[in-house]
Amino acid sequence: MEDLYPSRQNNKPEILKRKDPVIHTDRSKDNQAPISKEQLDSYERNGFLQIENFFSSQEVTDMQNGIFELQDSSRDVTSEKVIREPQSEEIRSIFHVHNDDNYFQKVANDQRLLDIVNHLLGSDVYIHQSRINYKPEFSGKEFDWHSDFETWHVEDGMPRMRGVSLSIALSDNYTFNGPLMLIPGSHNYYVSCAGETPDDNYKGSLQKQKLGVPDHDSLRWLADQGGGISVPTGKAGSITLFESNTMHGSSGNITPYSRNNLFMVYNSVENALVRPYSGGKERPEFIAVREGAATLSGIR
Amino acid sequence: MEDLYPSRQNNKPEILKRKDPVIHTDRSKDNQAPISKEQLDSYERNGFLQIENFFSSQEVTDMQNGIFELQDSSRDVTSEKVIREPQSEEIRSIFHVHNDDNYFQKVANDQRLLDIVNHLLGSDVYIHQSRINYKPEFSGKEFDWHSDFETWHVEDGMPRMRGVSLSIALSDNYTFNGPLMLIPGSHNYYVSCAGETPDDNYKGSLQKQKLGVPDHDSLRWLADQGGGISVPTGKAGSITLFESNTMHGSSGNITPYSRNNLFMVYNSVENALVRPYSGGKERPEFIAVREGAATLSGIR
Repeated sequence: MEDLYPSRQNNKPEILKRKDPVIHTDRSKDNQAPISKEQLDSYERNGFLQIENFFSSQEVTDMQNGIFELQDSSRDVTSEKVIREPQSEEIRSIFHVHNDDNYFQKVANDQRLLDIVNHLLGSDVYIHQSRINYKPEFSGKEFDWHSDFETWHVEDGMPRMRGVSLSIALSDNYTFNGPLMLIPGSHNYYVSCAGETPDDNYKGSLQKQKLGVPDHDSLRWLADQGGGISVPTGKAGSITLFESNTMHGSSGNITPYSRNNLFMVYNSVENALVRPYSGGKERPEFIAVREGAATLSGIR
Repeated sequence: MEDLYPSRQNNKPEILKRKDPVIHTDRSKDNQAPISKEQLDSYERNGFLQIENFFSSQEVTDMQNGIFELQDSSRDVTSEKVIREPQSEEIRSIFHVHNDDNYFQKVANDQRLLDIVNHLLGSDVYIHQSRINYKPEFSGKEFDWHSDFETWHVEDGMPRMRGVSLSIALSDNYTFNGPLMLIPGSHNYYVSCAGETPDDNYKGSLQKQKLGVPDHDSLRWLADQGGGISVPTGKAGSITLFESNTMHGSSGNITPYSRNNLFMVYNSVENALVRPYSGGKERPEFIAVREGAATLSGIR
């Protein structure tokens, strides 16, 4: 299959234009969307959308209990799905929760979420990846800038930009506790990165990404184009939707306030994975769903 | 001399109450102050005060030129005064600039600054320490939480809380490029830290502080008391004054925007250094001024 978004094939980076729509349902059908025209405009222009108070406080409490129960029960588990901080044993992420956990399976299928995601992607969807991110107080480390799509394309064989990431805030996000930072408009450009991809790169990259890392000049250019950096803050229960190719990262967290979220990636069923464009071997199912790519049907 | 603020003498931390005024000129003389009653109230309550547009844009340009010329001319210099990033050769700080550099000597003596500082400290003042901080884009590392006074007391023999730190912003401070974070109200408590102080501790601590680091429970308690964390942002040319004992820190900077400032500590001439309370040897003059503790006279 033709590679529309080559990356890690040269020793110098390059910026390519996006070749896919941002909203995959025709804009003439805005009135059928579950969100407003203004929200759609904002998502299309910036590459992300924040919605406050999406979940009720009871739902937030349930999800918070859910993530901490899972963290407790995973503490002594040795599993590739349980990722720890580089310099400690603290659990940083737990993967594949939409599949392994009954409760989070229901959350992933929440009809209110699917209504939005189906509209943005213009088709039925499935979960490409899910995880809980725990950014502990005092010691949470930064995530360097990256486009998720670059990795999913090169390492997982996701052909087109037709996925959307959803982050559900499960603690209050302040500007200072290592919140998600996004570069507005960056989804319209593809930073083709320098370097190549060794097999099993994911084993280190889930702790600290070293490949598929955009170069400084490209990042500066993207930020200058997009008018800087956005930091959506909001109470627990707010959601942030961001396009698969939106450049994002986060700083470390030295504050006494942890920052936790549930992160799920919805991909169009018409954009199912092919062979990795790196030519390397496929990453495991818990990072990049292939076998379990079931169309989500929605739970009300 | 009696040690009113013991620290690093036990193996467990303790929170003590402040034993000194915050504003050392009687509040009945507020009307003689160069700043408003509201600003004095805010400084007294929170332990810090931000003043926007303190310096003109021409002054900002001059100071920016000054710090980059000094950075360039220091690039190949091997000097204890030039501090580099832990994992690179980039210059993180240059110390003692109020003494070594004619231009920054004038800035330190700026009459507008002295008017404020003299009022806050209720006496003539001298510079206890000065430095330029460069927090480079993409790679600036965090500064962990600390009270400057704790270090100055234990390692330098500063007897009382009668100093004020001044940070002059020389790049725009956003919430996301590793700005100064302060805990409001923390200046009213002294976190007596666990541990002891080896000689020459400063050689490592200027890169990454390991002693005099407050414990997590104390930090959480202070933040809960003070209602969280404040992040003063503002354009280049704004100043932040903070009390010697105000708990502060900053996150790393992964953004394309550097963050630079000129930092000067004014101490009351009535609060001159004695022997370090650790019982250890004195730190060098470029970190803790003794010999050169000349009363500042002011330049208009």
